[in-house]
Amino acid sequence: MTRTDLEYAIESGTAAIDTDAFRRALGHFSTGVTVITADAGGSLAGITANSFNSVSLDPPLILWSVKKTSTSWPVFAAARSFAVNVLAVGQSTLAAQFARSGTDKFSGVGWRHGASGAPLLDDVTARFECERRYEYEGGDHLIVVGEVTRFSRFDRRPLVFTQGRFSVAIDHEEIDQAVAAASAEDRPTFLTMLRRAFLHRASEFREEAHAVGFTMNQSRLSYHLAVSPGLTLENLARVALLDVDAAKDGVSALEDRGWIGRRVDGTLELTSEGRRQNVRLGEVARSAEAAKLAGYTAAEIEIARRVIASLGGRLDNIPDYGEDP
Amino acid sequence: MTRTDLEYAIESGTAAIDTDAFRRALGHFSTGVTVITADAGGSLAGITANSFNSVSLDPPLILWSVKKTSTSWPVFAAARSFAVNVLAVGQSTLAAQFARSGTDKFSGVGWRHGASGAPLLDDVTARFECERRYEYEGGDHLIVVGEVTRFSRFDRRPLVFTQGRFSVAIDHEEIDQAVAAASAEDRPTFLTMLRRAFLHRASEFREEAHAVGFTMNQSRLSYHLAVSPGLTLENLARVALLDVDAAKDGVSALEDRGWIGRRVDGTLELTSEGRRQNVRLGEVARSAEAAKLAGYTAAEIEIARRVIASLGGRLDNIPDYGEDP
Repeated sequence: MTRTDLEYAIESGTAAIDTDAFRRALGHFSTGVTVITADAGGSLAGITANSFNSVSLDPPLILWSVKKTSTSWPVFAAARSFAVNVLAVGQSTLAAQFARSGTDKFSGVGWRHGASGAPLLDDVTARFECERRYEYEGGDHLIVVGEVTRFSRFDRRPLVFTQGRFSVAIDHEEIDQAVAAASAEDRPTFLTMLRRAFLHRASEFREEAHAVGFTMNQSRLSYHLAVSPGLTLENLARVALLDVDAAKDGVSALEDRGWIGRRVDGTLELTSEGRRQNVRLGEVARSAEAAKLAGYTAAEIEIARRVIASLGGRLDNIPDYGEDP
Repeated sequence: MTRTDLEYAIESGTAAIDTDAFRRALGHFSTGVTVITADAGGSLAGITANSFNSVSLDPPLILWSVKKTSTSWPVFAAARSFAVNVLAVGQSTLAAQFARSGTDKFSGVGWRHGASGAPLLDDVTARFECERRYEYEGGDHLIVVGEVTRFSRFDRRPLVFTQGRFSVAIDHEEIDQAVAAASAEDRPTFLTMLRRAFLHRASEFREEAHAVGFTMNQSRLSYHLAVSPGLTLENLARVALLDVDAAKDGVSALEDRGWIGRRVDGTLELTSEGRRQNVRLGEVARSAEAAKLAGYTAAEIEIARRVIASLGGRLDNIPDYGEDP
């Protein structure tokens, strides 16, 4: 291994043996999130899948993988067509709803039939209506290849799934480097300064969380259990914007450490030690920010907080900056 | 179509006919970026692919698609093994290098042979060594299924590819909503306020750019041509952190509008009208920020700029907040 590998390696293993670690490694490849739907003579099916991908432009083919044991697959097998609904930011609850079997997955969901007969979900960022072409052997999954007939894309930001978290994609710092190198004379806009400051603080916060003993996912789980104790794993995952597997990983690590406990009804809560550590993380982050701003008076810091708040929006009214027309 | 669809639809079409629009719609499904490598008796091959995805945990299978016309495929066909190198933020230039054929793709790239014999690239965020299992028909591509032997994941942020842009994933506003709902009494950290303000300003900037006539990608192309005129399309794409297809889309739209022209040597530059519009966009964004801060004195705004700059890092020293151990 190279020095950098030794420095940074988190987990390595044999995929056939270390299944959970293999799953976590796969999580380093980011994906969108889709709900794939079909209607076979009135019986509806919908499956959350991030295994979607493009295959071919001519002919227009896409693929996705479905567990061979999926109870929804028979509906897809009976239907000639299916629709790929690519979820937008804000639809992560839909991802959870269509990932949970045994419920009426479509209850409360806005949808209509497409020309192909497959259900089209409202408010997605893109949509592909497909005819089934091939099914291929894929171990515990079946690889489903469809030929795309109609497609649409919409002015909404795609939901991004990475490392177990539901996220959104933004420009990274390299863009600032190019800009800074190219136009040192221009004063950066607040937009540029805010991105730079946020990404830098986010990187520092991760170190602060590690120092206290939290990974990013664990700090989210801990925070949300602190503010709403007594959640089920599924509900905790939903409010923390994690998928259930990532939430399980984090919860069991915190249970092993004695920071999370279970109530008699099986729901989760922080132990007193867990609460202590959660409070400590908040204090560490706040004092780290205070230390960075030690050169400013309390009045100056208050002014900065007010200015930053003025540049931000109201949380109950979040605009979507969607995609490029 | 539902009202929201009519409101937000950007492009719809028939995939078999509207190939470029179909490709743009596929871009709404975000992906990671991989470089897939093989070594057949000393002849190396590497292909940039975002068509990678997981298939099965038991047995551990992954897949990717390769153009049937790829000049690199014969090397993969001759090699028993291949490696999937999942790129980290900061490796978008590697993505461009391994996407360009006819060059020595490995020149200047740090790598070593893995146990399987396939080249392992340095500084990636995850890595999968695979044995070839199946090749399936996929139109103009071949679907390659590999069984994963060894895997590793590293403490580096994954590079995200979405809507033609190389990006990074962050928490989106929903996290703030949950937090705000749960703990209205707490004062948010600067970290939270910065994310909220950045995402809000980013959404407003997109509207400002549209009002001037730019999409996000077009505004990036225009900005980088303004600061470094005379770039080739490939180099412009690289500095703007766009893939070549997205850069082509944006450049041809701006050429049609007479905002980009070509020099005798074929390189690109803004026309005088293009320069005017680029300057105008900067002015529009700056006056929009000024209008939001109309209630503050110039001195207060200067204090806020200094505080935000103090929370940010130096551009020549960007830490990586990587992944959760």
